[in-house]
Amino acid sequence: MLSVLAALSLAAEAQVMTHRLVVPDIEGYLTLKGDMHTHTVFSDGNVWPTTRVDEAILDGLDFFVITDHLDGRHQKLANKGLFNCDRDESYRLAAAYAKSRNMIVIHGGEITRGMPPGHFNVSFVESDTRIGEEEDKYEDHFQGMVAGLKEARNQGAFTVWNHPHWSRQAPNGPVWYDEHTKILDMGLMDGLEIFNQFDGFSKEVFHWAMEKNLTIVSGTDAHKLMELWIDYGNGELRPCTLVFAKEKSEAGIREALDNHRTAVLAQHNVYGREEFLKPLLDAILQVKSVKNTDKKLTMVLHNCSCVPVILHKAEGFEDLGYTRDIVIGADSDYTIDVTNAEYGTKFTRKSITFGYEVRNFFTDADVNLKYTFTAALK
Amino acid sequence: MLSVLAALSLAAEAQVMTHRLVVPDIEGYLTLKGDMHTHTVFSDGNVWPTTRVDEAILDGLDFFVITDHLDGRHQKLANKGLFNCDRDESYRLAAAYAKSRNMIVIHGGEITRGMPPGHFNVSFVESDTRIGEEEDKYEDHFQGMVAGLKEARNQGAFTVWNHPHWSRQAPNGPVWYDEHTKILDMGLMDGLEIFNQFDGFSKEVFHWAMEKNLTIVSGTDAHKLMELWIDYGNGELRPCTLVFAKEKSEAGIREALDNHRTAVLAQHNVYGREEFLKPLLDAILQVKSVKNTDKKLTMVLHNCSCVPVILHKAEGFEDLGYTRDIVIGADSDYTIDVTNAEYGTKFTRKSITFGYEVRNFFTDADVNLKYTFTAALK
Amino acid sequence: MLSVLAALSLAAEAQVMTHRLVVPDIEGYLTLKGDMHTHTVFSDGNVWPTTRVDEAILDGLDFFVITDHLDGRHQKLANKGLFNCDRDESYRLAAAYAKSRNMIVIHGGEITRGMPPGHFNVSFVESDTRIGEEEDKYEDHFQGMVAGLKEARNQGAFTVWNHPHWSRQAPNGPVWYDEHTKILDMGLMDGLEIFNQFDGFSKEVFHWAMEKNLTIVSGTDAHKLMELWIDYGNGELRPCTLVFAKEKSEAGIREALDNHRTAVLAQHNVYGREEFLKPLLDAILQVKSVKNTDKKLTMVLHNCSCVPVILHKAEGFEDLGYTRDIVIGADSDYTIDVTNAEYGTKFTRKSITFGYEVRNFFTDADVNLKYTFTAALK
Amino acid sequence: MLSVLAALSLAAEAQVMTHRLVVPDIEGYLTLKGDMHTHTVFSDGNVWPTTRVDEAILDGLDFFVITDHLDGRHQKLANKGLFNCDRDESYRLAAAYAKSRNMIVIHGGEITRGMPPGHFNVSFVESDTRIGEEEDKYEDHFQGMVAGLKEARNQGAFTVWNHPHWSRQAPNGPVWYDEHTKILDMGLMDGLEIFNQFDGFSKEVFHWAMEKNLTIVSGTDAHKLMELWIDYGNGELRPCTLVFAKEKSEAGIREALDNHRTAVLAQHNVYGREEFLKPLLDAILQVKSVKNTDKKLTMVLHNCSCVPVILHKAEGFEDLGYTRDIVIGADSDYTIDVTNAEYGTKFTRKSITFGYEVRNFFTDADVNLKYTFTAALK
Repeated sequence: MLSVLAALSLAAEAQVMTHRLVVPDIEGYLTLKGDMHTHTVFSDGNVWPTTRVDEAILDGLDFFVITDHLDGRHQKLANKGLFNCDRDESYRLAAAYAKSRNMIVIHGGEITRGMPPGHFNVSFVESDTRIGEEEDKYEDHFQGMVAGLKEARNQGAFTVWNHPHWSRQAPNGPVWYDEHTKILDMGLMDGLEIFNQFDGFSKEVFHWAMEKNLTIVSGTDAHKLMELWIDYGNGELRPCTLVFAKEKSEAGIREALDNHRTAVLAQHNVYGREEFLKPLLDAILQVKSVKNTDKKLTMVLHNCSCVPVILHKAEGFEDLGYTRDIVIGADSDYTIDVTNAEYGTKFTRKSITFGYEVRNFFTDADVNLKYTFTAALK
Repeated sequence: MLSVLAALSLAAEAQVMTHRLVVPDIEGYLTLKGDMHTHTVFSDGNVWPTTRVDEAILDGLDFFVITDHLDGRHQKLANKGLFNCDRDESYRLAAAYAKSRNMIVIHGGEITRGMPPGHFNVSFVESDTRIGEEEDKYEDHFQGMVAGLKEARNQGAFTVWNHPHWSRQAPNGPVWYDEHTKILDMGLMDGLEIFNQFDGFSKEVFHWAMEKNLTIVSGTDAHKLMELWIDYGNGELRPCTLVFAKEKSEAGIREALDNHRTAVLAQHNVYGREEFLKPLLDAILQVKSVKNTDKKLTMVLHNCSCVPVILHKAEGFEDLGYTRDIVIGADSDYTIDVTNAEYGTKFTRKSITFGYEVRNFFTDADVNLKYTFTAALK
Repeated sequence: MLSVLAALSLAAEAQVMTHRLVVPDIEGYLTLKGDMHTHTVFSDGNVWPTTRVDEAILDGLDFFVITDHLDGRHQKLANKGLFNCDRDESYRLAAAYAKSRNMIVIHGGEITRGMPPGHFNVSFVESDTRIGEEEDKYEDHFQGMVAGLKEARNQGAFTVWNHPHWSRQAPNGPVWYDEHTKILDMGLMDGLEIFNQFDGFSKEVFHWAMEKNLTIVSGTDAHKLMELWIDYGNGELRPCTLVFAKEKSEAGIREALDNHRTAVLAQHNVYGREEFLKPLLDAILQVKSVKNTDKKLTMVLHNCSCVPVILHKAEGFEDLGYTRDIVIGADSDYTIDVTNAEYGTKFTRKSITFGYEVRNFFTDADVNLKYTFTAALK
Repeated sequence: MLSVLAALSLAAEAQVMTHRLVVPDIEGYLTLKGDMHTHTVFSDGNVWPTTRVDEAILDGLDFFVITDHLDGRHQKLANKGLFNCDRDESYRLAAAYAKSRNMIVIHGGEITRGMPPGHFNVSFVESDTRIGEEEDKYEDHFQGMVAGLKEARNQGAFTVWNHPHWSRQAPNGPVWYDEHTKILDMGLMDGLEIFNQFDGFSKEVFHWAMEKNLTIVSGTDAHKLMELWIDYGNGELRPCTLVFAKEKSEAGIREALDNHRTAVLAQHNVYGREEFLKPLLDAILQVKSVKNTDKKLTMVLHNCSCVPVILHKAEGFEDLGYTRDIVIGADSDYTIDVTNAEYGTKFTRKSITFGYEVRNFFTDADVNLKYTFTAALK
């Protein structure tokens, strides 16, 4: 039912500020949320650069990279010569708009070639125009890519091989070509995009990153309006790169990327190195209360994030009885019943240690995070 | 999209704790939210008493009154003699369940008669059974009502005339009969139910309460499951009585009721005395920031409650330019543009006072709250 | 990610198609929903024209008008000379994108002057450029406006005085100046914008429209992303102009506008002429079932629209008992109890006629629609 | 509020009818959705039986079984002797209420013993009282269970071993004891509960069912209010048993259960035999359109259910290029790009066959459904 106040003049400036992504900081680092891959009307997207800022605010991101295609072919096609500008204008417009809005926009671009070597993103650049001009000098895919990446590196860029698993370029799964080895050996590949909203997650690419010690990132690769790209109405969240940074700034993000301090949050799964996923889970899960009576011990866990946590009792804890499979929903509590080996006797120890496999946290392809935590008893 | 984690054993104890009603405390008092009128299977409702507790928690209430019909006719019909108990069992079951759940359940009952005088609720009672037995002695509506109310008064009850505007008993609007004057004169009518989820709000009843200095209350009069009674899916909130109390306790609620310190929140409108609605609005609206530049002055207001605030520029403020009609949504910000009489000149005073009529806050039938507030300029 | 050859190949297209606005056709006409007032980056808005198309689809509109400011001052300012184009480009981009998407985009523009005479929208134009050039010839507000409107009229435009109640131009309420009389007398004012998302509804402007027999319209006047402008998260709907058309086409919309066959739906209220509001309510409310027993008569009404219907029992129906105040929520059922004068006797007539005032349907300033309907009894 | 004579007259009945679970019928059968395991205040639950009916309607179920514990211990404890009734009253109350509401309530009960053999549900019974009395004769768990099951079988019951993986009775995973072999050999075990909202899914139990050719079912085992048990606010759906029936009736449900024509839908996964999961997916996924141009072929798939469909390209389709991993959201469209081996050439065949593994449809423990479908080209 609604207000019976009908005969009124009403004006409504609805200032929607729903921050959908919520992930806590971890011990020693801030947890910054970002999108490493976005497009605008200045290449082949169809939203204005400032709209990418609005969307990032609505999603609760801390930063994002504008990565319009920087080659001459895309630039010439971009809205049919409508614009009087160089290849850096989309970044400038977004950054100017973001300034007063507490959003970090990072200057980037996409080098777009056939496979091999495919597409690469460069970020923290000075001039897309100069990178594009270098790339444009070569018709050959590999030569053009290397030329572009070298100019980007000269500008101090961070470089990522995008969506190696894109079905158009890898119809039967991602392939690591010799060209990729060469680019890696030249020091021109810093990271891998293990999740992309077009093709989802690739466990092969995730495994490559772990094996070769590369930084993992995620990008929406959004060309259209985010509301048409993420199914918010059905509860979908925008995928994001989690960056564990020493400070909230461009420099802080860059330092973390350079040191592989990232994780990827996508479709309710988290991918990353054990050394970050453990403290992340420590921050996400909180023991809210413990009740130890003669009859039983119950413990309430709280999940303070937007990520559900799916736990399965690990082997090696057979002497302790507790629910084998639980899901602690986003921003929810869960009550765990615990029993002694001698069912029904009271716990007299000072603390209990629980062991779980985390079914939606991965430290490598198909490898679940092992997680133990200890709750004190009074 | 959803997790690709498919092959898993998942268990989910969903502990939903959505507190839908949010209203801040006011200067000097706690703002407690309650429902003064509910039924269970122990009269003619069809939910178990503990379900009323669960619903109240989900709605964010601080208290509610169980007001099952206490007369013999209803008690005999109640589920066809299924129960072995007296007329106070619904209260006992709900109160026992509520104890560990931070919910206050108040012992009450409904005295149910034809019009005049209609139905009355009694709360803070000791024994519905004894009140019902007194009432049952008289077939005459007025005599039965007076007998019941007197016994309730002996027990120290607070008494309310329910839904004087119920269409069944008042098909063409509420009527104040001689019988009501008599009951009032006997000191047996403490309050009026100005909103009831069956028949909504009555401005006539609200006016009687203001005129005769009675306490105003609201009740859902829920017989069925609350989810079938309040249209949560379309954003409807449970109507409630706001009680401005010195402490969160049964005694605190009672002291506030006795001293008319209540308001009614229903269908996004608030009804009450000016002395409480003003501080309530002071607590609901917060000046978040003021920006005073050469070009213009903008002020961001925040509404920290679940109640939208609908403002219309009052007369007497013609020398100041600001939006005439605004709606500050629940839990939302609103940016107001303010201009000097000399459009475009900078404000040099130390503060600005704004005058509004509040279109959804009422201090009497069809009388909007007048509201001024002052924002400091730096 | 996209190569040049495949710039439109999308793999994962989340096709969110939530049609939020739902209003049925009425007897004899289609009910088309539209927004008569929108801006883009091509004047002082900050979204790309195709985004306005996406938003309109998500909102369930049938059409909208692009009304970028067409004067030289705004055009020069528009993104600081970034664009190589005339003043009609925003329309062209939106229309081309809309073509395959079942959305009608109408070519319009805004003539933007100080008060008097303020701002006017022109729609169904051929060339904003030519209108802007005519307007630009005059520094005087009135002369510039008339020059622009005359050129628009030459192109066959439909003309509307926008937001006469804009607080910036009418800080203490809307004023009808001599200049408006002159424009009206010259035949250059076809309609009035009675609702605008900045300043809400004005009952004064609505009354002028009824008095002077002008077409009423509504516009969001959106400059920013619609998601920042309409509070969807709190259930707000985009305000719209309802056009009762003979066919779904530009011509159909125009013919209806020319013949005043519109209503305005904004903030759950409907404003319009009785001759359209009555059949609209006939279409919105459906008698789903009638149950006539010895004890009572109950009737279930269904509301098949997104507009709640707020009814108050009218005078003159005192011999029939039925709930005095009801709200039939959007897309909801409501069960009405009806009783005879002799309470409890069975209805033996062939039909019953109910009389209501519709509290959220207005046929003039503060005038509620009178509504009667008849339900057949078996 | 209600007088005795009009105990069912409701004025404002908010009729919320959100049917959350949507699953289409399959070739040859109706798809009925049900909950095989629920409790009420008549054993150790805390909702009234009619509330279970209201919840089932809100969830979109077609049927559910009331399975209160039927032994003397639970019955004596049930609300401390408050009730004057036998052990079948909860069923009677729910069934009477459901009659006019298009909901099928099935008479059942739970036989509750230590492990082995644990808990069994019986449904389609005549008298819980008689079954309970038989069970009560034996203190020994196995003997008591067999006695109860035999009496249930005499009444024509359908019997299910509940939650073999309940962490309290199987702290380190489910164990099939000799006792279960005996019960199976006696013909007293018809089905297995492979999903239970307490302990989630067990792949071991699912495998037993497939191996031993038992009927698979799911139950919420709800004791508390469903809104506290299912996290609706976060998009969780009530788990259910899908019954592929020849008619919507108690007899139809029973015939399907007896012939193993069930599947389990829980936490966005579907478990069942290939012979039902294939037609189920055929009914869920619809080819909405196919566009075959010189450049590319695109196909729009629609998912008409509440179950997301998660597809992974199967091996053996390397000559055809199409997205390897897709998620077709509940009630959503998805556009698939398809390319020839010779990238960019037009398809000239009459049809295309796609091969997928369905990542959230399982035909045995960790075994994904293989699914191919063919789309005609014009």
